[in-house]
Amino acid sequence: MKIDGTHFTTIWPGNGNSYVEIIDQTLLPHAFKVVRLTTLQAMIHAIKTMQVRGAPLIGAAAAYGIALAMREQADDSHLQQAAQQLLDSRPTAVNLRWAVQRMLKRLQPLPPTQRNEAAWREAAAICAEDIEINQAISQHGLGLIRQLSVARPGAPVNILTHCNAGWLAAVDWGTALAPIYAAHDAGIAVHVWVDETRPRNQGASLTAWELGRHGVPHTVISDNAGGHLMQHGQVDMVIVGADRVTACGDVCNKIGTYLKALAAFDNAVPFYAAVPSPTIDWSISDGLSEIHIEQRDANEVACISGSLADGSTATVRLLPAGSPAANPAFDVTPARLVSGIISERGICAPNELRRLFPEYA
Amino acid sequence: MKIDGTHFTTIWPGNGNSYVEIIDQTLLPHAFKVVRLTTLQAMIHAIKTMQVRGAPLIGAAAAYGIALAMREQADDSHLQQAAQQLLDSRPTAVNLRWAVQRMLKRLQPLPPTQRNEAAWREAAAICAEDIEINQAISQHGLGLIRQLSVARPGAPVNILTHCNAGWLAAVDWGTALAPIYAAHDAGIAVHVWVDETRPRNQGASLTAWELGRHGVPHTVISDNAGGHLMQHGQVDMVIVGADRVTACGDVCNKIGTYLKALAAFDNAVPFYAAVPSPTIDWSISDGLSEIHIEQRDANEVACISGSLADGSTATVRLLPAGSPAANPAFDVTPARLVSGIISERGICAPNELRRLFPEYA
Repeated sequence: MKIDGTHFTTIWPGNGNSYVEIIDQTLLPHAFKVVRLTTLQAMIHAIKTMQVRGAPLIGAAAAYGIALAMREQADDSHLQQAAQQLLDSRPTAVNLRWAVQRMLKRLQPLPPTQRNEAAWREAAAICAEDIEINQAISQHGLGLIRQLSVARPGAPVNILTHCNAGWLAAVDWGTALAPIYAAHDAGIAVHVWVDETRPRNQGASLTAWELGRHGVPHTVISDNAGGHLMQHGQVDMVIVGADRVTACGDVCNKIGTYLKALAAFDNAVPFYAAVPSPTIDWSISDGLSEIHIEQRDANEVACISGSLADGSTATVRLLPAGSPAANPAFDVTPARLVSGIISERGICAPNELRRLFPEYA
Repeated sequence: MKIDGTHFTTIWPGNGNSYVEIIDQTLLPHAFKVVRLTTLQAMIHAIKTMQVRGAPLIGAAAAYGIALAMREQADDSHLQQAAQQLLDSRPTAVNLRWAVQRMLKRLQPLPPTQRNEAAWREAAAICAEDIEINQAISQHGLGLIRQLSVARPGAPVNILTHCNAGWLAAVDWGTALAPIYAAHDAGIAVHVWVDETRPRNQGASLTAWELGRHGVPHTVISDNAGGHLMQHGQVDMVIVGADRVTACGDVCNKIGTYLKALAAFDNAVPFYAAVPSPTIDWSISDGLSEIHIEQRDANEVACISGSLADGSTATVRLLPAGSPAANPAFDVTPARLVSGIISERGICAPNELRRLFPEYA
């Protein structure tokens, strides 16, 4: 998507596949900085510190991580080691595992001398497919938004989203925000309620930033406010992304998603998850018992960064001395609370994923 | 309650009823400062800017606001004007209206020459009653915690609370935290999950601070995390305070309370509101349609204050330029989601308040 008129993706290779460049998302919205990564370790650091984040982008980043590793050394042991280190870098998003396994499947049969070139080609293919998938999601979701718009002529469609599942979370377009961009570009009046998404504020920092750059009307709210807005008819639908979806349609997404799903259910507001198929973990069914939830550093709750009046960035501590914090990063929304999954193959009830993807049945 | 061994209340008169002193709660937990108020306008400023906050404390502060006004000038028109200005200072907490009406009822029949002395006496009586009420709530709630503790010997009782309904929100003891202090003091192992309570972070700033000063084990979490903890059996009960409760038991409290009530209901976790009777608005029944929800400044969402590494305090901006924010301050939890109301006369189902308070039936 565009930033002030210039088209960007979130990740791209450079100079004849000798490095990868990313947008450092930990600095947004206060600074826009492109970071050049030349080694596997630099990519692992970028994933762990969330310079790149969002399930689809983590998948693409892991693929390029393998490519960077193959550039360094392409033997079997190095390939296995790189794969394992990437798998360990973040535990919850399944796209990472999906991308690493796809890279292994492609590279393992090849002689080491051919792996470097093949790895960069495969990583580029994963990125191209991500864009294609998200464009398909945008069109399916657009249909839902159009229906709501037709039902209430003259009023904007109010859509609530949690965390960032926009183009910054993918290679381009995004998942949850893709239908919103498509609706806005099609001239449908939309307004987005942006959950700030504590503790890392991906909503306030990233979703608000990318919607603003694209000109989509939006309002940031505290994570506490969404239920109240739904009680008062101010939310027409909820669209979120996902870090992992089980074969039965349980949706693991950023911590707090479950609370919004409960409120949507209680107020008969449709609740959709936009899910590219690499985010579906066909190997599990019960999200609550089977998905390992990442526990992140308590300092993400205790401290927060923002911009001072002079434009510089500062980190302030929010907690009293001696007060500990806990930081589970994701939660699981049971399928019973999900109105539908928007995938690249269309929209289905959460328990009908295998109908859309019969090859996994 | 005690701060580092010294007993404090949140508000007290000084020097022969010539001024009122308060703890400036906007500076906690980074600085502890007592502020002296000598005029009605200073008290209104303290209420509006939330130097004093919490439904019971706002009631006590409004009573002392009338007393400060009577010290300045005690004729009928000044009394009426002072009452109206206080009523307008914050719209949601019913205790403010309750206290102002009680002061008017006491003072209006008196000749102006007797009003100053009577006002200070009545304000002190309101404060004394607040402490008495909260002590009674602490004992009733203690019974609930004791039951949970007996049912799971050896494990601490995990209690989740939202916002600050501790002694800082009242004159002393608090409402939601009063049973927790009583349990801790009685040797029952308790652990409190403290919702940080965006946007003003009263949980992270005030609840964590006062629990820490009293030695009660606690962990701060983002507002998004409570549902996940309940799904995994890590919350035994929820206790919150209230800003206004309807005669039918709808609970208006800090924004986000409704989301926690939904999660508690979904996971069969008991959800209690600790409610002193002055917080009950007997004139209304449907909280969703009848309670005016205060909309506060968007800057409370856009910016946040905390302490820098050198100990000084700074305010940082969290949002991108051009992104607006909305800030509804309270929400309403329907009675159907409330397991019980803990009042000074005992515990009842939310629709049985009139049984405990037959004088309002």
